[in-house]
Amino acid sequence: MTQLSAPGRPLRPRGKLLQEDARRHHRALLLQSLFRDGPASRADLARATGLTRVTVSDLVGGLVEEGLVEELGARPGGRVGKPATLVGFAPDAADVVCLDLSADGRVCGALVAPTGRVRLRRSAAVKGRRGDDAVALVLRLARDLVALAERPVLGVGVGSPGVVDPGGTVLDAPNLGWHGTPLSRALHERLGLPVHVANDANTAALGEHTFGRADSGHLMVLRVGTGVGAGLVLGGALLHGHGSAAGEVGHVVVDEDGEECACGRTGCLETLLAVPRLRARVDGLDPAARADALAGTGRRLGAALAPVVGALNLRHLVLSGPPDLLDGPLAGATADALRRRLMPVVGDDLVLRTSDLGEDVVLVGAAVLVLNAELGVS
Amino acid sequence: MTQLSAPGRPLRPRGKLLQEDARRHHRALLLQSLFRDGPASRADLARATGLTRVTVSDLVGGLVEEGLVEELGARPGGRVGKPATLVGFAPDAADVVCLDLSADGRVCGALVAPTGRVRLRRSAAVKGRRGDDAVALVLRLARDLVALAERPVLGVGVGSPGVVDPGGTVLDAPNLGWHGTPLSRALHERLGLPVHVANDANTAALGEHTFGRADSGHLMVLRVGTGVGAGLVLGGALLHGHGSAAGEVGHVVVDEDGEECACGRTGCLETLLAVPRLRARVDGLDPAARADALAGTGRRLGAALAPVVGALNLRHLVLSGPPDLLDGPLAGATADALRRRLMPVVGDDLVLRTSDLGEDVVLVGAAVLVLNAELGVS
Ligand SMILES: [Zn+2]
Ligand SMILES: [Zn+2]
Repeated sequence: MTQLSAPGRPLRPRGKLLQEDARRHHRALLLQSLFRDGPASRADLARATGLTRVTVSDLVGGLVEEGLVEELGARPGGRVGKPATLVGFAPDAADVVCLDLSADGRVCGALVAPTGRVRLRRSAAVKGRRGDDAVALVLRLARDLVALAERPVLGVGVGSPGVVDPGGTVLDAPNLGWHGTPLSRALHERLGLPVHVANDANTAALGEHTFGRADSGHLMVLRVGTGVGAGLVLGGALLHGHGSAAGEVGHVVVDEDGEECACGRTGCLETLLAVPRLRARVDGLDPAARADALAGTGRRLGAALAPVVGALNLRHLVLSGPPDLLDGPLAGATADALRRRLMPVVGDDLVLRTSDLGEDVVLVGAAVLVLNAELGVS
Repeated sequence: MTQLSAPGRPLRPRGKLLQEDARRHHRALLLQSLFRDGPASRADLARATGLTRVTVSDLVGGLVEEGLVEELGARPGGRVGKPATLVGFAPDAADVVCLDLSADGRVCGALVAPTGRVRLRRSAAVKGRRGDDAVALVLRLARDLVALAERPVLGVGVGSPGVVDPGGTVLDAPNLGWHGTPLSRALHERLGLPVHVANDANTAALGEHTFGRADSGHLMVLRVGTGVGAGLVLGGALLHGHGSAAGEVGHVVVDEDGEECACGRTGCLETLLAVPRLRARVDGLDPAARADALAGTGRRLGAALAPVVGALNLRHLVLSGPPDLLDGPLAGATADALRRRLMPVVGDDLVLRTSDLGEDVVLVGAAVLVLNAELGVS
């Protein structure tokens, strides 16, 4: 037998596309390194990315000119000889306009820094607006935020209820009367800025992955509100699914003997877990009975999620919703049930927690949509 | 507000790495296009990949020299004028040495063409060999296959039982006495060829994705044998999971009132579905009772998997194992139970089938491990 020849002759630099593509890719590598690992010298960056010193210096120069990277002076506590100069991701280079359309009756917005810090908030009541009127309301809120920005606006990120396709069209969000509504295109045409739209639970998963403590790259965020939905980041990337409906677990039947659901079936996850159902089940109970009821819900939740956590070998399962319901017996019993049902190799490594980012998880996740698409960082 | 400057000044071609990286990337783009979509002209390829004609011609020239791509002459039935010349992925350019270590008591091997066709098979009995002796047996089988190859060998692909880390170390395969066994390194050092090792169910999922009819890029393959395990391809990529244990669903408890399991717990998926359990439950029953029993198993399987299929928005769920058990009532009842438990937007699009690739699914998947890593195609 013979071996295949090694992959190839040296390539003469010809196609311009070839170089631009490589440049974008390497620029994103550098930004990502500074974004995740903090300030570094040019030599550190060359080591971390595998690029040559010359290429790194060239690209860093461009990023400093653009304002995305800043010179931070000599490395503190340096060794003998000429100390290395550090550069860092510039937290004040830009604002991201972020919108969370998943709240009940309100559209919430914020200017968010690339560090995930919320700089300023605005919101508006929906007051029954639907379809194009709801789009106009969202556009107005986005415009107000753009006008309030004191820095360049990197783009607009939106966490929307419903199934959202990769092009930013909301396929189905009954509460806002959106069915096949091209939200991303509508906002982009009017604002002249990059716009990125995703489902609110998917957006929350990105927020946790990038700015929360669930930063393993193998996580599910379960959003518990009027409805129930999940977002999954697997191997560091958001999962979309075959029909852009990944994470739509609210109407998966988990208990055929459960309560009737608005969708016409029986025992959907929402009947177990949606906030109105939970409150109806525990309001007025004395503390011990309340804890029992919440633990019972947690046990059933753990049973339903065990095949998911096991099949995906998740590191983080994050519950996002009212802390008075989710923290405590419910989260504890969910974790116990999962560990009882999973192999130690999977269960021992699993971290179940409630989100530290609270209600901001969708807003900061919307910033990640933009940071990721525009700069290649997350 | 001001806009950020457009991303950048033109880059002078400097770093050599920059060009080599881009070249590898674009070479893989071309191969992938020819591999998935079949023969094309250079102009077709430029359109499909977004590369310039000059770049495409240059890269195709290199690939023809290497023997991976072949000139196929003028496009048949061409229009007026000079007909376009087609090039195609060369099916006879290479062989892949493929090993399936998941069978009971045997290690199976084959020479597989890049088209997925099995050209030749060899196997060897394990006869209780464990640890280093089992590695030596695998090495011998691989050597025999390399010696039998009449074409250049692109590499060695291995589907192994147990959890396999990304570096090809088998963390835990009790049947072969492997615990932290660096199988990939051991074979590579002795054979001097690229070696790629993955868990057998993960390998099967790659086989289905690339050479089976479950080619959506959103699929789970459930392997039903002495044990039960799954492999997931999501968004076109194999899922590894936080601890490389994605798909390890055999010992997830799905029924707390179920049968006792070898692992010490009760109601693991294996107690429901493993072949010895299934046979014990249905052997000797008359046809109607047998069909009932298999349908009951299918209903419970559907209930356990509904949260997984819903959360991932899968397109394909493939059952791989003995057709006399899986085809028919079991598969039918599983599909029914899933549809009853899933939202129509997810359930209507789901295709549940048994594998057409039969027992070869791991072998051809092992070829995909190599094709993917060495050529960037899948
Ligand atoms: Zn429902
Ligand atoms: Zn078990």
